[in-house]
Amino acid sequence: MIEKYLPSIDFAQSVDGGIAAPLGFTAAGVYCGVKRAGYPTNTVTAASILANENIQREHKPDLALIYCDTVCNCAAIYTKNLVKGAPIQVCREHLANGKAQAVIANSGNANTCNADGIEKARAMCELTANEMGIDKENVLVASTGVIGQILPIEPIAEGIPYLKKSLSKSGTPAANAIMTTDTVKKELAIKLTIGGKEVTVGAMSKGSGMIHPNMATMLGFITTDAAISCEMLDKALRQAAADSFNMLSVDGDTSTNDTLLIMASGLAGNSEIAEEGEDFELFAKAVYEVCLALARVMARDGEGATKLVECVVSGAVDDINAKIIAKSVICSPLVKSAMFGSDANWGRVLCAIGYSEADVDITKVDVDFRSENGVVPVCRNGAGIPFSEELAKQVLSTDAVYIDVTLGDGCGHAQAFGCDLTYDYVKINGDYRT
Amino acid sequence: MIEKYLPSIDFAQSVDGGIAAPLGFTAAGVYCGVKRAGYPTNTVTAASILANENIQREHKPDLALIYCDTVCNCAAIYTKNLVKGAPIQVCREHLANGKAQAVIANSGNANTCNADGIEKARAMCELTANEMGIDKENVLVASTGVIGQILPIEPIAEGIPYLKKSLSKSGTPAANAIMTTDTVKKELAIKLTIGGKEVTVGAMSKGSGMIHPNMATMLGFITTDAAISCEMLDKALRQAAADSFNMLSVDGDTSTNDTLLIMASGLAGNSEIAEEGEDFELFAKAVYEVCLALARVMARDGEGATKLVECVVSGAVDDINAKIIAKSVICSPLVKSAMFGSDANWGRVLCAIGYSEADVDITKVDVDFRSENGVVPVCRNGAGIPFSEELAKQVLSTDAVYIDVTLGDGCGHAQAFGCDLTYDYVKINGDYRT
Repeated sequence: MIEKYLPSIDFAQSVDGGIAAPLGFTAAGVYCGVKRAGYPTNTVTAASILANENIQREHKPDLALIYCDTVCNCAAIYTKNLVKGAPIQVCREHLANGKAQAVIANSGNANTCNADGIEKARAMCELTANEMGIDKENVLVASTGVIGQILPIEPIAEGIPYLKKSLSKSGTPAANAIMTTDTVKKELAIKLTIGGKEVTVGAMSKGSGMIHPNMATMLGFITTDAAISCEMLDKALRQAAADSFNMLSVDGDTSTNDTLLIMASGLAGNSEIAEEGEDFELFAKAVYEVCLALARVMARDGEGATKLVECVVSGAVDDINAKIIAKSVICSPLVKSAMFGSDANWGRVLCAIGYSEADVDITKVDVDFRSENGVVPVCRNGAGIPFSEELAKQVLSTDAVYIDVTLGDGCGHAQAFGCDLTYDYVKINGDYRT
Repeated sequence: MIEKYLPSIDFAQSVDGGIAAPLGFTAAGVYCGVKRAGYPTNTVTAASILANENIQREHKPDLALIYCDTVCNCAAIYTKNLVKGAPIQVCREHLANGKAQAVIANSGNANTCNADGIEKARAMCELTANEMGIDKENVLVASTGVIGQILPIEPIAEGIPYLKKSLSKSGTPAANAIMTTDTVKKELAIKLTIGGKEVTVGAMSKGSGMIHPNMATMLGFITTDAAISCEMLDKALRQAAADSFNMLSVDGDTSTNDTLLIMASGLAGNSEIAEEGEDFELFAKAVYEVCLALARVMARDGEGATKLVECVVSGAVDDINAKIIAKSVICSPLVKSAMFGSDANWGRVLCAIGYSEADVDITKVDVDFRSENGVVPVCRNGAGIPFSEELAKQVLSTDAVYIDVTLGDGCGHAQAFGCDLTYDYVKINGDYRT
């Protein structure tokens, strides 16, 4: 699915390998049984699951390792939810010096709201460090899944040696291992030239429910072999997230575990990017394009979604107001339901603009629906205009719909990424735990 | 359905008649065809619909009139959405002097985002005034239904004489006429003694989608025969709405047409309530209890809902923070989906508290699920505790579920009213217009 949203940019090209593509990085994923309900039992142990090739083939992995041959400069952004997963608290400690060499991540259990959460998150780092022979402070940790269930550490302890054995230059097993209700893996890598050297940026992420700015990522990991200071890495990451993951909403629920990490090995051999300038601009653009592609795929693969719904706002008072409006439109359950039904119910778009609390002149709002199937203007100057219901149905009956909102208030621009609200969203979330 | 949520209060008792119960008031509802798709046609006219008793029996009415023998003191609260229905603009004009004698209201068309909206809303008032022989400035108007479709005035013009003919002391036809996707009519009346005189308060409202504070009512009308000044009427209404309709959310979409009106005929003969004191307290309490009952029924009858979901917060820093938390919990699509599945996924409750932006100590949060089937404590001090999944399922498998959130931060208290998110919500809203 990601192919459709790959950046079509002149300064970079797609390459294979995902998160493991940049120099120095390898990755792995195994199924250790964290996701298994009621696990472990007396008869089914993690060891037996890990040693059984049939089980490994049949199950999506649930434990991922990203490893770098060298200690990396790192930056991270975490959820703004006051309830923070234990892994986030441990990441904060371990990233105090801006350095890391490995990431251990599991799906199936968020390790959040558990009395022993911090202890378990630290154990995940320590087990990884021991196995890889590195400093435990250089291991980062992430968990995603059900909140408030005790994380079984045994499958993770048993799984880590298997991860080490299967480290490779393919990011795919790791990208699979962080999926929860995602239906497609989300990974990509691009290469570009910075300061005369070839630089690669790889990434993977997972959705697909409890997705709302800020941060909307749940889990996102970016690797690069660019040489860049921690400070500039942090800057590039924040810029990229502001217009991609932070403009993404599946359901308005900001997760407790959202984590976006970037690691730079420096092995590309470019002269270190330590300040703003041409090299930084190029690198930041590459990170942004990667995040944008992932954000679009995460929206499209939102829980139960049948289509990407993107709202593009122009002519707002400023970019901030444009963002408020774009987010309000893609978050409206009524707009989302109408998109599911391919119903050109533009009144709901106006309604969502009206309650957004943005500074907007409602009498100057124009709305068009747009897709690869055409464009339907439906509203001019805040009032309805006649349109062909047949054409509208055709435009909306596709898997990527754009709602263009043109205002008469200024030069502000923004785009926000969402999806339709479907029966399957309700089905998936009506009984997620069992 | 409303019987279940009628106020069980010692100072008042339920009476029949709904909106028409207080002295001086009558009400009526007819089916004139505003709701009819593609109406009018050459063969089906409003006149033929109105004159046909079979058609009137078979269809839910779509045009309501509330009339009072005398000019009333009035107060109103309107949507905060920047996009406001034309009827609201006309109500504002007509209520500038705080007086009104009649309300004309239609369902099936919101008369919003139409170039001729104001003109049509004014015409509705004028037609009513002419028929009733009253001043057009004393007529208020409300519309609810699809946004952005031209309101046909002919069926309304034809319907008003029929409304006049069928005015009675039953509020039911009017309560039926304002329903859109509501599955039950929402009306009640209570009587109490104020200053030695019997005073009656009647009310009706409609939901059931695009419901979110503030205002969450879509349309709500309250009548009373109490003698009370405009100023105190306004005060009582705002107090009542703050803890009832403004704490109600079905889907997070604040409508463009929300209107809550109160009319006081003064015919009860009590000495006019013109300041705070015992009489005002009693009257305000009666209005609040009526609004509370309607809010609960509107939540329970939210689009597609199978249950009322109420969040009761205590121990917050203050009432404002308690309200923020209670609203965040009942608005979370993930909590709502879990309630639909009768799944005790309390982690999502914690998550919604965490992103609410309230001032809260997460390590002191206790959560219980409660219903007529029992109580299940699921979280203490921000961490999960063991509980019986069987008991939890039993507690949640009912049509009114309470999520009790107890904090350790202060004395703030609030309750918020919502419902579960179901397949039917998506179904209803995936193709609402056609």
